[in-house]
Amino acid sequence: MSTPRFRIEATDGAARAGSLLLPHGEVETPAFMPVGTQGTVRALSPFDLEAVGARMVLANTYHLHVRPGEDTVAELGGLHRFMAWPRPILTDSGGFQVFSLEGFRRVDDEGVEFQSHVDGARRRLTPERAVEIQWALGADVAMAFDHVVPGGADEAAARDALERTTRWLERCARRHRALAAEHPGRQTLWPIVQGAGHLGLRQSAVNSILDLGDWSGIAVGGLAVGEPKTVMYEVLETIEPSLPSAVPRYLMGVGFPEDLLRAIALGQDLFDCVAPTRNGRNGSAYTPDGPLNIRNAAHRADPAPLDETCDCETCSSYSRGYLRHLFVADELLGLRLLSLHNVRFLVRLAEEARRRIAGGTFRAWHTEWIDRYNTRGTK
Amino acid sequence: MSTPRFRIEATDGAARAGSLLLPHGEVETPAFMPVGTQGTVRALSPFDLEAVGARMVLANTYHLHVRPGEDTVAELGGLHRFMAWPRPILTDSGGFQVFSLEGFRRVDDEGVEFQSHVDGARRRLTPERAVEIQWALGADVAMAFDHVVPGGADEAAARDALERTTRWLERCARRHRALAAEHPGRQTLWPIVQGAGHLGLRQSAVNSILDLGDWSGIAVGGLAVGEPKTVMYEVLETIEPSLPSAVPRYLMGVGFPEDLLRAIALGQDLFDCVAPTRNGRNGSAYTPDGPLNIRNAAHRADPAPLDETCDCETCSSYSRGYLRHLFVADELLGLRLLSLHNVRFLVRLAEEARRRIAGGTFRAWHTEWIDRYNTRGTK
Repeated sequence: MSTPRFRIEATDGAARAGSLLLPHGEVETPAFMPVGTQGTVRALSPFDLEAVGARMVLANTYHLHVRPGEDTVAELGGLHRFMAWPRPILTDSGGFQVFSLEGFRRVDDEGVEFQSHVDGARRRLTPERAVEIQWALGADVAMAFDHVVPGGADEAAARDALERTTRWLERCARRHRALAAEHPGRQTLWPIVQGAGHLGLRQSAVNSILDLGDWSGIAVGGLAVGEPKTVMYEVLETIEPSLPSAVPRYLMGVGFPEDLLRAIALGQDLFDCVAPTRNGRNGSAYTPDGPLNIRNAAHRADPAPLDETCDCETCSSYSRGYLRHLFVADELLGLRLLSLHNVRFLVRLAEEARRRIAGGTFRAWHTEWIDRYNTRGTK
Repeated sequence: MSTPRFRIEATDGAARAGSLLLPHGEVETPAFMPVGTQGTVRALSPFDLEAVGARMVLANTYHLHVRPGEDTVAELGGLHRFMAWPRPILTDSGGFQVFSLEGFRRVDDEGVEFQSHVDGARRRLTPERAVEIQWALGADVAMAFDHVVPGGADEAAARDALERTTRWLERCARRHRALAAEHPGRQTLWPIVQGAGHLGLRQSAVNSILDLGDWSGIAVGGLAVGEPKTVMYEVLETIEPSLPSAVPRYLMGVGFPEDLLRAIALGQDLFDCVAPTRNGRNGSAYTPDGPLNIRNAAHRADPAPLDETCDCETCSSYSRGYLRHLFVADELLGLRLLSLHNVRFLVRLAEEARRRIAGGTFRAWHTEWIDRYNTRGTK
């Protein structure tokens, strides 16, 4: 194949059910992508990911560049072979990490100088380098290198970063075209809509991106970074009509269950988030009645599964009492079993959303689902 | 079934290939049992254990008594249901932990008072309580409560502990008979041969045990606790002719690959050890050429599997380079993948020993195997 193909199969309001064909396989949307920061989704194996129905995962360019280095990954056969995940992979560009991790950084129009969180060494990323690193890693989808500002950034700062992001996008695209010329269809590059919480900037970001070319997908970044939830929904609602409908929209870093459904209702197709695995390692499990803390004494001798509606290994095989014991006794298996369930929960939620969109019942269902999730509250 | 049945299928010198039928299924011997100290084999799920060919696991009475408590395990359906392991389980008696963990302990003929390692509370174990706890846990095989002394104990101390162990064995057997009267065949009780490194005491321990009744299995304890390896082999060689051949012999706590083969040659059938999972979590992997430290820089870009002769998930799916990255980057998946391989390695070693015994080629093969393992050394 030369470029990714996206086909919309059904819509329900702004919500879309589609199918995205990438070099390493097909992804039905809406879809949740688990995050494999360092080339592994924490506590889960690729066989676990396959079993819970994940069809595409994300890996972090910054982390893999710093350790083990893209050359080592390439020597070991590229990212798919390296992490033994044969299905589609998306790599972020490193922009988010460079601007959000602790430590020194200096940005100018050329790129960013920053300090490695592993050894403190000074390193430099430019749009061209970010594209080259992702090319060496070999993911199906690479992301353009962007200047990310905090969620509450004022308009001047957000505009400055956005204009730089747009200039960088041109350079990313040029470098990517040059690399792809010899291996067309190996990897595609997606731009990122920035602009913080400023609706005018977000709209102009979409316009600039569309002026720069035809894209096989468009990401929305810089949300779910501490701004009020209402701001995120406003941004998505504002830009939705001008996003091309024929390509997938990827809302970066979003993955709490309620946000996933609200963003699907606002026309987003792909999602990633570390929350299911991070929360799982902390003993917090998603259920249709809200999150549950497995360490609570109430679960001591409870023979019920975490979530009786779930079909994952954790819910099919182990009682809440046993899972609580694993956490209280600091056993590694507990980290894995709750991570496994939480990822399955989000994958199933996206699958169910897809069925509801196809059946034309998405809007009513998603409202009821969110009500139940929020009403029962934390246990 | 009423009592376990053991059938010897082949012998090669003192080495035996057999089949042990327990309430929860059959175990072909020689066999290695992974250790699930707190009701979970560290970093592995019961599905992992099934996949690597484990057919029987060990759980620790002391640890499960202290946390979550045998009543909680019983409320949750007993140990098999609790840890979702449907095959045979053996529980140790708690004697080894009570005498080896740090903290206060006081022993008299009635039993032992000790301090919980979890909350520091004073607790008491007697032969009767140890049997009752194991009955509540519901393992297929329970072990008699014994007084364990350090490997280098002098003869007077070892004799004193051994005589106490023999008196305790009578009390264990009496209590177990009373419990089993109402549920015959639910669980069997095995005695433990003690006597430290003193051959005369070991021999008299065997005699006392056989005087006390017919057993469905006999364990050898108090070895691999710091004494020279030659002492262990001498003890096994000394007692072998007087151990009844018609029951399985279980060498407690032994599981380094070389020791496993030497003990099989000396007539032992069952083994357990935390080494494969503990070493795996430390980045040490068994190979036919000796243990390998996956953190070594030599493995940075090595596309080879840990052990090219192995059929486990780890060796079938991941390169040494990727496994090294997981350890260097502190990723949980690495702990699991090396534990998985190491357990598979010992399970396969026992399986291969079984085939060699059946084929009459065990003795020559085991010598060559040990030579290769020791010659190449640590990498």
